[in-house]
Amino acid sequence: MRENDFLKWIQLNSPAHPRVPLPIGDDMAAVLLSPQSSALSTPHSPLLKIDQALDQLHFDLRLHSPAQAAAKAVNRCLSDCAAMAASPSAIMLSLALPQNVTDPFAQQLFLAAQAAAALFDCPLVGGDTSIWNHPEGRLVITVAALGTYSPTPFNPHPITRSGGQPGDTLFVSGSLGGSILSRHLDFTPRIRLAQKLAAALPLHAMMDLSDGLSQDLPRLATASGTGAILFPHRFPLHPDAHTLADRDHLPAALHALADGEDYELLLAIDPDDTPALAALSEREIAAGRPGLTAIGTLTQSPALLLQSATAQQTPWPNLGWQHASK
Amino acid sequence: MRENDFLKWIQLNSPAHPRVPLPIGDDMAAVLLSPQSSALSTPHSPLLKIDQALDQLHFDLRLHSPAQAAAKAVNRCLSDCAAMAASPSAIMLSLALPQNVTDPFAQQLFLAAQAAAALFDCPLVGGDTSIWNHPEGRLVITVAALGTYSPTPFNPHPITRSGGQPGDTLFVSGSLGGSILSRHLDFTPRIRLAQKLAAALPLHAMMDLSDGLSQDLPRLATASGTGAILFPHRFPLHPDAHTLADRDHLPAALHALADGEDYELLLAIDPDDTPALAALSEREIAAGRPGLTAIGTLTQSPALLLQSATAQQTPWPNLGWQHASK
Repeated sequence: MRENDFLKWIQLNSPAHPRVPLPIGDDMAAVLLSPQSSALSTPHSPLLKIDQALDQLHFDLRLHSPAQAAAKAVNRCLSDCAAMAASPSAIMLSLALPQNVTDPFAQQLFLAAQAAAALFDCPLVGGDTSIWNHPEGRLVITVAALGTYSPTPFNPHPITRSGGQPGDTLFVSGSLGGSILSRHLDFTPRIRLAQKLAAALPLHAMMDLSDGLSQDLPRLATASGTGAILFPHRFPLHPDAHTLADRDHLPAALHALADGEDYELLLAIDPDDTPALAALSEREIAAGRPGLTAIGTLTQSPALLLQSATAQQTPWPNLGWQHASK
Repeated sequence: MRENDFLKWIQLNSPAHPRVPLPIGDDMAAVLLSPQSSALSTPHSPLLKIDQALDQLHFDLRLHSPAQAAAKAVNRCLSDCAAMAASPSAIMLSLALPQNVTDPFAQQLFLAAQAAAALFDCPLVGGDTSIWNHPEGRLVITVAALGTYSPTPFNPHPITRSGGQPGDTLFVSGSLGGSILSRHLDFTPRIRLAQKLAAALPLHAMMDLSDGLSQDLPRLATASGTGAILFPHRFPLHPDAHTLADRDHLPAALHALADGEDYELLLAIDPDDTPALAALSEREIAAGRPGLTAIGTLTQSPALLLQSATAQQTPWPNLGWQHASK
């Protein structure tokens, strides 16, 4: 089974529901609490997300502390709140614990999850705990988030993946590549940046980069009904991308495309709004926080292409991190 | 580690938050979407729950189909909605899948979860899928539910565990004991019954019976600051409780106390409201649905006691299903 195929099958097999204006398939789903509340523009309409982290797949308890694992699990889920420019209202934590679990281990998991959410004034309001009954049972940390979107003059609705338009400029926050060297465990969900962006200019489409540009940008383009051209020479490369490139002699830009787990924002805006975005980016950088970089454009043609500094175009690489089973 | 002790520790270590009028520790937590919305009486204030089911612990794929496992996982979570007299507005599903998972297996899980929720007009709006990277990785099904409570004239707030008062009569729905013979996999969350109860009379306290009366009633009594006396000779015994009693020569009432996984409602009401409850119960039974049975009373004294038909009192048995680890 391939996870991407299963996700597509799920979307095809999820019937529409009058209380679900934004169904499965985006970074979060939107739910109306009563049929009377009308659509996405309702202030404080709930957004939902669930996300899990498995030992030796998303973290590794042989190398990482329970606190690191729990913080990562929570931050992955909060990164999806950032992707919609939403605020996390509450999280819940479900733990499948190893058979030999100790009290301090479980307590560290809980406190680290609580602390990660508290950075965004988000309480941990629910939990479930089970202990595996066999010695091979590994830790599973599942986090569910309830988010809310507060409409802004420029963006009355939560920011989805599907509003991108041909000609839009693509931006990313921060820098990309080499996250495996450490950032994948210790990153800041871009919640505050996303909210500043939503307040400053119209955002056509946005998502967070969890599987890497090479897999995530096609999702945004497909949802928006567009193609895309990326300019790898413009990628904001993280020093860790260079470190890996030095080791494996592959281009650092390939690491930025394929490594994944950057947990940065990818967004599409009208090119006319670039000055507003650039001004915001400069303010962020001046304050010691990550800025934003233009890395490509959405196109009418459905093709996905890379374009070099010398205007040579190459097709999209089939890269990135994808679990497969038979 | 003992799960009950960890739960108590979690409650002690969960600070109050202005947007959380009903914190961790009840069947669901209540969350306000904005600080302005005032408290629990807000119609359609969100309620949250997360719950997981593990292979060979909550179900057994050597004996049960993926559809049975998924339906149970969803129904366990919906049973917590029933416990608050809430409606499930949406669920999310997270799957940690065995390494050799096939498409039909995963699809059956999803469709069964979707179908179980659809019985209550509840859409499945979010999902996450991971595949274990080692051969011993077993299926974990995690379900998160968003519920809403619609205030009734008798019950302006969701029904918690903590409102019981000394002198209250304790009722249970349906019949108890022997669920392991089959009902633990195939039960109907008492959502509709709970809503009828909330519309018909004031409910002081309510919860669902997942771990068995012997463990769950002390939780309700502790939350309410009361003790309790139960009358085992009045227990509504399921035929499966008698079947097990015939096998192991223990009293059938002991199975009703200790077996767990009944997923019936336990509620505390003012004795003056018994006629309204009895009338509702008779209507349910006449329609071929489970009724309600008085099984005990809440007391001023904090003791938990069993009282026989001849008025002999014995202390609470230390029974029921509780995972422990070192």
